[in-house]
Amino acid sequence: MERAVLLLSGGLDSSTLLHYAQKRLLVSSIHALSFNYGQKHSRELDMARWQAKKARVAEHRVVDILFMKELLAGASALLDESLEIPKLSDLSDADRNQPPTYVPNRNMILLSLAAAYAESRGIQDLFYAAQAQDEYGYWDCTSVYLQALNRVLSLNRRKPVLVHSPFIGMRKFAILKIGMELGVDYAHTWSCYRGEAVPCGTCPTCVERASAFERLDMTDPLLGR
Amino acid sequence: MERAVLLLSGGLDSSTLLHYAQKRLLVSSIHALSFNYGQKHSRELDMARWQAKKARVAEHRVVDILFMKELLAGASALLDESLEIPKLSDLSDADRNQPPTYVPNRNMILLSLAAAYAESRGIQDLFYAAQAQDEYGYWDCTSVYLQALNRVLSLNRRKPVLVHSPFIGMRKFAILKIGMELGVDYAHTWSCYRGEAVPCGTCPTCVERASAFERLDMTDPLLGR
Repeated sequence: MERAVLLLSGGLDSSTLLHYAQKRLLVSSIHALSFNYGQKHSRELDMARWQAKKARVAEHRVVDILFMKELLAGASALLDESLEIPKLSDLSDADRNQPPTYVPNRNMILLSLAAAYAESRGIQDLFYAAQAQDEYGYWDCTSVYLQALNRVLSLNRRKPVLVHSPFIGMRKFAILKIGMELGVDYAHTWSCYRGEAVPCGTCPTCVERASAFERLDMTDPLLGR
Repeated sequence: MERAVLLLSGGLDSSTLLHYAQKRLLVSSIHALSFNYGQKHSRELDMARWQAKKARVAEHRVVDILFMKELLAGASALLDESLEIPKLSDLSDADRNQPPTYVPNRNMILLSLAAAYAESRGIQDLFYAAQAQDEYGYWDCTSVYLQALNRVLSLNRRKPVLVHSPFIGMRKFAILKIGMELGVDYAHTWSCYRGEAVPCGTCPTCVERASAFERLDMTDPLLGR
């Protein structure tokens, strides 16, 4: 594969995917896209910039869609200052299925913009680091979701874009393991939803990240410094 | 149906749909959404404002997504100043299937934002005025597209949004006929892609609009003044 667009949040999964696409899938020209949509952990965008630079991508764009914060006011703890990021341990089973940090339809918004961008550049392949989350989940990170979305995109009469999600069936530690083999520098990735100076250690994504490092008997470089 | 979100461009189809949803489908509270995405015919947004006010919608938002113009630079004659809006008569058969005025993946972008907005407000129904265009067409205005998109949205675990497109099988004159019965004021709708002071009369949407009025033995009030 010569060229591809890649959604790069700056988190563990998409940073690993960036290096995986380059080194394992031999995509020679990666156009990375990141979005500033009002996420509390916009620190992740600095990490996205660092990873993109490190990987010498063909292009990295950080697209400002901050209007989403206002459009979806009150609907997500990831965007709204008045809503608290929950601790994973406080989530009910129902909440783990669609936690307060869920942003309504976010992934379709980001993927539709990325697919439009790919199409406009004549690029047919789009990478997105959905994964089988271990402790909580989102409907727009599943394999059935990806298939249904690709079905829509396949209807395009000229240049259909195909979304690839090579990590979709994997648990986080398995992704981390791949990344370690590839030499990904996880000190320059960000996961914590709170987005403060240091990871909180208790939000859903912190707990999941910590357990992935634990499973591999490693220390998260973000914590070990 | 009590509440619904409606994509209102200010063109003939969506303006008719607004009044149709209110008067025929008895939606009591309509939340209209319009998008400024860099379309040359942004005059349509003034018409959207006029129609929304006239219909006394519960809310009308014009969302600024002008970043799309830059993100998709060079990819659509509808956005790019350096690309000419074609005359319908100059389009080849292949071009009529996906004309230069096509904006890559535009409808998925707009629908995903509208669905996110609906979901964030606890609204389950979303209206979108796709129609069976007579002279040219877009893949993201077809019935199979709508079904595939609804399949994706149906996977949402809590509040799936359903997209309705009551005009999807209709030709433009049939929509116009409904609108005339409903008393829609077509002097306050805008179709021409060129977006100049008066409709050009030769671009695809002008030709289609004109033939709809002709078919009903009427004069377009935009031209007859």
